[in-house]
Parts: sequence; structure tokens; C-alpha cells
Amino acid sequence: MGLVAVTWMNCLGRCLPQKTRFLHTLKGRQSDQILMSPSLASLDLPDTWTPNSSCQSIPDIRKSFNEQTPTVIDGKLMATEIRSKIADQVRQMKKCLGKVPGLAVILVGQRRDSLTYVHNKIIACEEVGMKSVVTELPTDCADADVQNAVMRFNKDPSIHGILVQLPLPQHLDEEKILDALCLEKDVDGFHPLNMGNLSLRGREPLFIPCTPKACIELLIRSGVKIMGKKAVVIGRSNIVGLPTSLLLQRHHATVTIVHAFTENPEQITSEAEIVVSAAGVPSLVRGNWIKSGATVIDVGTSPVEDPSSEDGYRLVGDVCFEEVKKVASVITPVPGGVGPMTVTMLLVNTLDSAKRMLNFT
Amino acid sequence: MGLVAVTWMNCLGRCLPQKTRFLHTLKGRQSDQILMSPSLASLDLPDTWTPNSSCQSIPDIRKSFNEQTPTVIDGKLMATEIRSKIADQVRQMKKCLGKVPGLAVILVGQRRDSLTYVHNKIIACEEVGMKSVVTELPTDCADADVQNAVMRFNKDPSIHGILVQLPLPQHLDEEKILDALCLEKDVDGFHPLNMGNLSLRGREPLFIPCTPKACIELLIRSGVKIMGKKAVVIGRSNIVGLPTSLLLQRHHATVTIVHAFTENPEQITSEAEIVVSAAGVPSLVRGNWIKSGATVIDVGTSPVEDPSSEDGYRLVGDVCFEEVKKVASVITPVPGGVGPMTVTMLLVNTLDSAKRMLNFT
Repeated sequence: MGLVAVTWMNCLGRCLPQKTRFLHTLKGRQSDQILMSPSLASLDLPDTWTPNSSCQSIPDIRKSFNEQTPTVIDGKLMATEIRSKIADQVRQMKKCLGKVPGLAVILVGQRRDSLTYVHNKIIACEEVGMKSVVTELPTDCADADVQNAVMRFNKDPSIHGILVQLPLPQHLDEEKILDALCLEKDVDGFHPLNMGNLSLRGREPLFIPCTPKACIELLIRSGVKIMGKKAVVIGRSNIVGLPTSLLLQRHHATVTIVHAFTENPEQITSEAEIVVSAAGVPSLVRGNWIKSGATVIDVGTSPVEDPSSEDGYRLVGDVCFEEVKKVASVITPVPGGVGPMTVTMLLVNTLDSAKRMLNFT
Repeated sequence: MGLVAVTWMNCLGRCLPQKTRFLHTLKGRQSDQILMSPSLASLDLPDTWTPNSSCQSIPDIRKSFNEQTPTVIDGKLMATEIRSKIADQVRQMKKCLGKVPGLAVILVGQRRDSLTYVHNKIIACEEVGMKSVVTELPTDCADADVQNAVMRFNKDPSIHGILVQLPLPQHLDEEKILDALCLEKDVDGFHPLNMGNLSLRGREPLFIPCTPKACIELLIRSGVKIMGKKAVVIGRSNIVGLPTSLLLQRHHATVTIVHAFTENPEQITSEAEIVVSAAGVPSLVRGNWIKSGATVIDVGTSPVEDPSSEDGYRLVGDVCFEEVKKVASVITPVPGGVGPMTVTMLLVNTLDSAKRMLNFT
């Protein structure tokens, strides 16, 4: 029995009859499994409520956290471990079928952060032996140009994953473009049908969006219990905040989404045991936003000018790292936290897609 | 400018530039609009964050509520008002096109609560002049029997809405059956594509599930502000809890879903200004779960034995009404709260579907 089972079973084990626990554990573990995250279907536990028999006073749940040094999650190291397993499977696939997974990226315009992200994805594909293709289109291209690129990759049997690098220029119809993407190749998991299946218990999306999937994998690999814990997701973007909240919920956290219209966001956040910040606002999350001993995952990557850097800018997170590290027990850095794991999840999704399409187990 | 705009704009008006406010307001109001709820697209406001400049202490947000008598929402009266408008539009449609909206219900088995619900839906259709058809299937029928019934109604041009009464007997594959339902007639809004579009900002589902839609309409008609408020949804079923949380979120509440694995559900619920309980557990929500002055929407309808009742049972909610009415400022009763409004939303969805399919405005 692997680590994953221990991680997500122990905290509220009382809720599960022994047989159910075992079944769910088995489902979540297979010998060739690259990630520690269990399948969503294996997470669907019955909600059994016990009505209160008496009106008790509400206990104070705050506890002080005594340790001084938090665990700084090394997303790069985790990513390296996972990518090495992916590379193994890609080699096996090549040996057995003479084929490798293929990823197609469509990049519109020259946003420098988008260029960096696409570059990282291509390098990552190369490192694990996957094929990758990039179609670059000018900023002023038409909807039809992007849709045509999508259609071409939809039909290409050597391509198992397609992603349109977001954000697109304002004049393009993101909804129409994403809807054109063949569901079986939507490795970003942004199609509304995927999102619906992510939110509905009993259902399983073809692909879990990469950043939310990375956050969960980081938590599980860091030994952070999710089930029953209070989690706050800051930000509710369609590509990170929303699916992260849905995924944490499928993992049985008690999730609150804090957004720009939330009153007292710092007060609500300071009650959470797990905080995932994806607002894209540098230094939004201060030390006083965080409960002692909480786990803090920083998804923010805002480019800020930095003449001393090679590219003239650097990426900064949502979290005041220096302040928050004094109160959190587990924290991700930016860069080197969620970023490398997000790219890794893209590789996992592309590999899974190729395995599904080529019927390779 | 109608009541709806006032209701959902005033609380955090500071966040919206004047022009945006006006645009969103216009979008949400049309002269033939039956409901007060604005369209989801009109709710998609930009998330503008202001980073903190200093670490302030967190203020105590609890305030005492001095009024003694809560507003008990009369769901029956609201439903009557809305149904009268629906009846007007059905008459107009009949006059102009010689056609009326048609609802098909598929009922498997003889669950007495399901029988009651289906009966109520059919009566409601008759009252507003809509056509309704019920296909009854035996408890031990096969997946194919239900799917065939669905297919028949999918093709029937006189049917604009189809619903499969849930829950289905355990041996049936609910997922497969619901997926067979033509998306354009899925008036329950349970299809994963609808759910995905409900969750994603910038998207609009063809149908919003009836109970969540009823809850929002009840809140708006009762003058309860949603935007920026702390809302707790108790229960996370695919048909009520989950879509209600997604919908409240689209209305810019700060939403927490409390479920059976939540630690300290009473403590979390007691911080909310809006509580929607959909756990299906009689007397789960006690007086000490509720903040003074909160709004409490009780979606629970559990049948309990009652020999004194005509049917031998009665429906009870999740909320200890007698206890909670002493602290809440607004509360729905069971029966007579959400129930009649849910059936009304089914009529609204069926009418909308017929208008869309018959191109009738």
C-alpha cells in the first residue's frame, strides 16, 4: 500500500467502513501509476451526516504552531522524479509501438510570459522523449486562423494533446476556439464538458487541468492531508482558481473561494489549513493572512521588471514569502514551486492521452 | 431600472466603474423577463484586487441582530406570481404559433416522494397551460428501457423539456441515461456540459438546475444581497449542493461548501450571512449553527412517517425551524418555501426551451 492511501485516508478514517477504504485504496494505486494522486472516482465517498443531539458551544479551533522553519516544497525536484517515470513509459511505448506521445502548442502573439511558458513546455517534451510541435500565429490573426490550426491538430494522429496558450489577444473568441478542440486531445482540460465532469461526483474528466492537478500532487507528495481540512482558494479564474476549488472539493476538503468581491479576505484566509493562491497579484497574501502551521501553495506568477535578470523581468508569486514562511508549516516558492509541476502535469496528461488513443497500457 | 439591479449592485458598487454597472444592468433586464435573476453572463465582473499596504489586525465581523421576528419567505406566493406570468406567455405562444411548451417526465418505480414530485410537476404544467407527458417504467426495468424513452422524447418536436425523475433505482446507470438526453431539452440542467458552463465565468448554460435557480430567485425577491456576502451551502449533491454553490459564486458570494467530511460544520456555518441547506438530514441545522440576522434557505425535504397526514408521511427540512427562526432574519419554511419555486423554475426552463426551439420571442 503506497503513500497516497495513507495521505488521504488517515485524517477522517472514522467516516469510512474498512471495506470501502480498501477498495478506494486499490483503485487509486496501480503499479504503473506515475502520480500519487488517486483517481477522482476512487474519491467519491458517501456523505454520512450525524445530526446534532445537543446545542454545544463552539470550540476555538485555532492552535498555535511552534515550529519555526517551514518545509519549502521543492517543485523542481518533485517534477524531476515524475518526469523520469514519464520518460521510462515513453521509451516503453516507443519500443512496443514505434510511436511517442505528441503535443501541439498554438501560440498567438509575442507575450513574453507566454513565450517563456511555451518554451518550457517544449523543452520538457524533449527531455522525456515526446514529440512537440508549435504553431505560431501573429497577434492580429483571425479566429479562423486559430481554429484552422486546432482542426489540423485534431486530425493529426501523431498528436495526442493540443493546447492553445492563454491568454489570447482580446479580439479573439476564446470560447469558440477552445470549443473547437477535440475533447480527447484537450490536455489542458479547459473544455466545459471536462469542467462539468471535474465538478460532478461520480464522474471523471478526461483531463484534469494541469495547475490544479499540480497543486494536489504537491500537497500529497508533501504529506499534507486534504480530506476534511479547511481550504481557501484565492482567485477564481476558469483555468486555475475554479478547477482547483472543484478538485480540492473532490478530495473532501471544505473549500472556500476568496475573490476580489470577498469582504475580509484576510480573515477568511487566516482560518484555512490549506491556502492556494492564484490571484495573480504580487504580494497579495501577507503574513497576517495565514494561520499558524498552514500549508501555502503559491500559484501566482506575475512578471515584474528586473533589469538585473537575463530576460529583463522575473516572475513573482501572490505570497509575501518572507512574511508567510514565518507562520506557515509548508510553503511553495516562486519560481521552483508550482511552475515545474504544472508543466509536468501537462506531460502526464499528454502521456495518458497517447496511452488511451493508442490503447497502450 | 428594475429591482434586480438594485439588489445585486448596491453592496459592492465601489468595485464597478459606472459604465460597467450600467451595461450589466441592461443585460440583466428585459421587458419580457419572468424572473428577477439576471443572466449569468451579465454577472461576470472583472476581479480587481487591491494589495494590502499594511498588516492590520483583523476586525471582529460579528454583529448582533436585534430584530426578533424573521421574514418567513412565502415560496408559494412567489411561485404563484411567477406562474401567472408564465401562463401569459404560454397563452401568447399558443395564440401566435398554435403551439405550447411540452414537458416529458420519465418516472422509474414507485418511490412515494418521487410520485409526489412528479404529480406536482404535472399539475403545475396544467395550471400554466403547458403540455405534459409522463412515461412510467417499472422499478426493475433495464437501462435500455429508460434510454429508449429518452430517445423518443428527444425526437418528439412537441416536447421541449425532458426530465428523468431522480433518484433512479440502484441497478440503473444514471450517468449513461442522463448523457442520452438531448442537451437542448435538458431542463433539469444536469448534463455535465451544462454544469461546466454553469461553473465557468464567461459561459452560460442552456439551463440552470431548478433548485439552485429557485434559491437565487427567492433570495433576490426577498431583497437579500448576494454579492460579497459569505454563503455556506450545506451538502454537495450533484443536483442541488454543487450547482447552488457554483451559482452563488457566479453571483459573487464568497462560498463555502460544508459536507459530511467537514470538521466543525456548525462553526463554519455560523459565520455565514446566507445559508442554503441541502443535506437531506432532518434537524441537521440547529439554532447555534446560524449567525444572528442570517438568511436561511432550507432545501431539505426528507419524508418522515406521519400517520395523521393524508399520505401517511410529511416532508421535513434540514433546519430546526423553531430554533433558527429566533436568530435568522429571513428563513424559508418546509413545505411552502423552496419546493413550489423549484417546480416553477422547471416551468421557466421549459418555457425558455420552447421559446428557443420555436424561435419565439
